[in-house]
Amino acid sequence: MANKNMFLFWGSGSSPCWKPMIVLAEKGLWEGLPQKLVEFSKKEHKGEDVLKTNPRGQVPTFIDGDIRVNESGAICMYLENKYSKEDNRLIPSSLDASAQVYQRMFESDNLKSKVTEPLVYYRWMTPKDKQDEELIKTKTEDAKAELKVWNGYLEGQDYLCGDQFTMADVFVFPQLAFFKRSGASFADFPNLNKYVDKIQSRPSVEATWPPHWKDSKGPDILKDL
Amino acid sequence: MANKNMFLFWGSGSSPCWKPMIVLAEKGLWEGLPQKLVEFSKKEHKGEDVLKTNPRGQVPTFIDGDIRVNESGAICMYLENKYSKEDNRLIPSSLDASAQVYQRMFESDNLKSKVTEPLVYYRWMTPKDKQDEELIKTKTEDAKAELKVWNGYLEGQDYLCGDQFTMADVFVFPQLAFFKRSGASFADFPNLNKYVDKIQSRPSVEATWPPHWKDSKGPDILKDL
Repeated sequence: MANKNMFLFWGSGSSPCWKPMIVLAEKGLWEGLPQKLVEFSKKEHKGEDVLKTNPRGQVPTFIDGDIRVNESGAICMYLENKYSKEDNRLIPSSLDASAQVYQRMFESDNLKSKVTEPLVYYRWMTPKDKQDEELIKTKTEDAKAELKVWNGYLEGQDYLCGDQFTMADVFVFPQLAFFKRSGASFADFPNLNKYVDKIQSRPSVEATWPPHWKDSKGPDILKDL
Repeated sequence: MANKNMFLFWGSGSSPCWKPMIVLAEKGLWEGLPQKLVEFSKKEHKGEDVLKTNPRGQVPTFIDGDIRVNESGAICMYLENKYSKEDNRLIPSSLDASAQVYQRMFESDNLKSKVTEPLVYYRWMTPKDKQDEELIKTKTEDAKAELKVWNGYLEGQDYLCGDQFTMADVFVFPQLAFFKRSGASFADFPNLNKYVDKIQSRPSVEATWPPHWKDSKGPDILKDL
């Protein structure tokens, strides 16, 4: 096993954490990985052990021997470049094919800025009596427009960039699963539902499924999506 | 020249546009590049020609033969992988050294979320009589804490990842230059000042300097930084 010099701090249900976890599993590095599941509710991400590796006090935080990487996307890229074999590449070796994968990876930030931040974080962080329901209606329409784009990308194909699971799926799936967990039905987005159903039974995804999602229901913040 | 099949739509002063422009210049692909400078004030980024390549109606939007890439970071990665030579790599070929470059590239999102969005965009998008000066004070302190981190990274070195200009600098410099343009003095961050001074005379940066910055002064929104 290549992973005994590694260590991962992660939090359950966090998309930024889940992404590198899926990559680790795809590379056969997840099983037996030295790790700590930090509890956000106990502020363990601000604990001394995390801060020593990542002064920002955030997870994921990843150690590989002398290497420290603390940004979700950076860990994914590092693992991809260092631990890929021919049969588990997540970024195609064809440079032209890789362009689309990079496109969807970076484009996935829109799911955060159009759905997670204006709807989920807004509900979490704004006192109930100060929540602007009119604003939420507008933001819900924007979020639907964003989901429609991704639903379109999946028309006629199983994965975001064709018939292979790629880094684009690693970046996007955890966010879509989080939306479902948060009450989204995707009633208007059949391709997204089919996609989430398919990917959630992928071994790397099953192995890294957020533990606290298994035995609890999420809030229904996104029930209008 | 390799660039006659290429086309770039870009906007002046936009960090997301400037990043791939610097990469193009570093690879010797900027001079003579077929391109269109779109004027945001005339909503040219929502013009038919842009929308045909990028349905989101955003720049940068890049064409290379049959390839279309519309996300700033994705264009940078595509160009790096496709057009690097030994002497103009922006991501080191050593996988361990590349880890830090990826780290700083992805970490640079914090400059947007801690400085640009809460201070610049907030001022731009909130009617003057609704701007919450107490909130701005708090956000200014957060922004300073973020700049302090980057100032620290530059202690004792010319570039973000050591003695070579890398993709980390491509991702970070345009944002710092934008902060200076927006009135930041960096009085408490001498390494940032030294860094901006040094990088701004780099040929790839000079060649791609935002045209409208040359003959006008920016607003002083960030004068407290």
